[in-house]
Amino acid sequence: MSGRTSYDRFLSPTGRLLHESAIRRMGTVVARAGDLVSFAPGYPDSALFPWDQLRAITHELLTGADGTVLQYGPTRGYAPLLEALVDVLQARHIKASLDELMITSGSQQGLDLVARVLATPGDVVLVELPTYTGGIAAFRNAQADLVGVVQEEDGISLDDLDEVWQRVRAAGKRAQLLYLVPNFQNPTGRLLALAKRRQVLEWAERRDVLIIEDDPYGALYFEDVASPADTRPIRADDERGRVIYLSTFSKTLAPGFRVGWMVAAPSLIDRFDTAKQSVDLTSGTLDQRVVHLAVRRGVLDALAPRLRDLYRRKRDVMEDALRRQLGDRLTWPAPKGGFFLWVRLPEGCDDVSLLERALEQRLVFVIGSAFYVDGAGHDRIRLSFSAPTPERIEEGVRRLAAALKPAPVSSL
Amino acid sequence: MSGRTSYDRFLSPTGRLLHESAIRRMGTVVARAGDLVSFAPGYPDSALFPWDQLRAITHELLTGADGTVLQYGPTRGYAPLLEALVDVLQARHIKASLDELMITSGSQQGLDLVARVLATPGDVVLVELPTYTGGIAAFRNAQADLVGVVQEEDGISLDDLDEVWQRVRAAGKRAQLLYLVPNFQNPTGRLLALAKRRQVLEWAERRDVLIIEDDPYGALYFEDVASPADTRPIRADDERGRVIYLSTFSKTLAPGFRVGWMVAAPSLIDRFDTAKQSVDLTSGTLDQRVVHLAVRRGVLDALAPRLRDLYRRKRDVMEDALRRQLGDRLTWPAPKGGFFLWVRLPEGCDDVSLLERALEQRLVFVIGSAFYVDGAGHDRIRLSFSAPTPERIEEGVRRLAAALKPAPVSSL
Repeated sequence: MSGRTSYDRFLSPTGRLLHESAIRRMGTVVARAGDLVSFAPGYPDSALFPWDQLRAITHELLTGADGTVLQYGPTRGYAPLLEALVDVLQARHIKASLDELMITSGSQQGLDLVARVLATPGDVVLVELPTYTGGIAAFRNAQADLVGVVQEEDGISLDDLDEVWQRVRAAGKRAQLLYLVPNFQNPTGRLLALAKRRQVLEWAERRDVLIIEDDPYGALYFEDVASPADTRPIRADDERGRVIYLSTFSKTLAPGFRVGWMVAAPSLIDRFDTAKQSVDLTSGTLDQRVVHLAVRRGVLDALAPRLRDLYRRKRDVMEDALRRQLGDRLTWPAPKGGFFLWVRLPEGCDDVSLLERALEQRLVFVIGSAFYVDGAGHDRIRLSFSAPTPERIEEGVRRLAAALKPAPVSSL
Repeated sequence: MSGRTSYDRFLSPTGRLLHESAIRRMGTVVARAGDLVSFAPGYPDSALFPWDQLRAITHELLTGADGTVLQYGPTRGYAPLLEALVDVLQARHIKASLDELMITSGSQQGLDLVARVLATPGDVVLVELPTYTGGIAAFRNAQADLVGVVQEEDGISLDDLDEVWQRVRAAGKRAQLLYLVPNFQNPTGRLLALAKRRQVLEWAERRDVLIIEDDPYGALYFEDVASPADTRPIRADDERGRVIYLSTFSKTLAPGFRVGWMVAAPSLIDRFDTAKQSVDLTSGTLDQRVVHLAVRRGVLDALAPRLRDLYRRKRDVMEDALRRQLGDRLTWPAPKGGFFLWVRLPEGCDDVSLLERALEQRLVFVIGSAFYVDGAGHDRIRLSFSAPTPERIEEGVRRLAAALKPAPVSSL
């Protein structure tokens, strides 16, 4: 048994079936390569991290006057940050009391805690087609069986949702969880219509299902095509504790702090808290302090309009470049916010082989099929415009055009 | 289904059996109470966190010149920190290559990843009697069956280890994992004898068992009773990949950064990495950068002798106070390092009722039974001397004496 030999006989069932996130894998490629244009991970633009304010806040915190700044903290989270979140949520029309709140180490940890505490191995978790790969990985690693529901222009199809649910039940299985990304869905950029939000909540009540509402991008709507009213979370109208709401500071303040949060009924929060105790004891203490002061001092509020503006302009750059260079071959739904274009490939072109050709051109993106739990999506790719500069976006689209070059004769 | 009603029908098997860490619970008590003396959690003394250096390092990192400082990072960890760890480990006589290393969000996450990837529900995990509650919680939450092995003066009993293993096998169960804290064991403060370290490694090879070696306290030996040579990790002599080694910066630099690490065979590290992708994507980016510079600039090396000296002096304060006030009633093995005294209670006094009386005196500690997987330990308590000042240690021992007051008549 040397380093390279097999440890297979030691692996648990979870250890055996572990699913890697396609996005993470792409991130590793990015880290390794030299002159690579990355349209792959949903990284925010670090140029807009509020460096000066964060430096000042950190400087203030690290004097040693308050030893708890670098000490272990409560698993539930730093109390003043939880209090600040009550106000952050209020602005999103969500009324949450302190016992309904918990800090997580990024919202990925929220997904993982939900999966561990609520997904019974073999049970079905309902997800959108397509959906966020990190959600897929968390539920799969809890050994849940993922079943997809189709999306329409304005989000998940309520008809298909109930049909799928009934089919699952008819097959003798349980489906008690529905995972949704209503705002600027990852990867499609779609916005779930307000009427549908009410309907899906009623549906969950009728079918005794819990909704996992993942909302990392809600604040990042494009002001030319969406308004804050359009982003009203499902949780805002949830009076019966049907919704577990997840969000994060990663897309607005900075992901390096690993500070996300969850909102759920107190008895569920108690369970997630207990689970987190053995998972990582506590999220970063200094990180939570910095985020707390950034929120309380209005850094985040002042930043939000600038972020919306920046990402809208980057969307324009990418859309313009795509239209100019590939407008006859690629289509995509206009995103209403967020970081991504969800691009349909020309007939006969598939995501995996296009990625191979793109890598030769030193371009990386995420293949569409990574977002599907049913094997579909090979006719799509996800292009992220959030992190690269406008110049790099232009360059990346040139490379994409080059990768698409060996095109069907008809298009020449 | 209002906030307070039951979600029991939604819970997974893991969600149902979740085990709370007794230490975490005590931590919550501490956070709430006013003038409480806490001998409960193993918190390092924040007075010795290197505040000035950490402030300078953070100031330097947060200029915005390098955007990746607050960006998402690789799941495996910040590469220069991994490289620095190679040297840290070298000083502990462990040869590790980069593909054998991974950063974890505190070493608690290392335990959790090990439990998820390697503990099959229903399988037995062998642990010391007593052992660290966070280890117990991680393995129990993976639905493992924990079976204890007795300790002798110089650590785990090899005879009992093999007997227990054989008994488990005879009962038709598998025992593939052994969890050990060889250096200044939590809660006993014991040091596993060097000869036994070799023997346990040979035993693991013979019985095809993996050893999880948890080493948070190795650097914190008491120079009057132990030497660095005594702390040589089992992993240092592990040529066949039998040992998964976990350590952390929480007890030496500061726990608020949540930076720990694990060493294992490359194929296992790959699995842990994949598991971590869906658990929290990445550990704190800024935290890793700060720790990296603190290590590379010698902050940690300069600090270590001061920490050893400080904790040795605090041990003296607590031992002296206990001897003076309760020397006729309490006994404990002399710890060789670490943060704890493992105290035997007088005949007829049990840990739970003593804790109740102690809380009335505004004193908290961890009950002995929390560290046992077999229901024993009610005749013990764990007193931590690491965080409180000498004055508070004195005061706490006075309160302990008061709590012990309603003593058997014979001792009056």
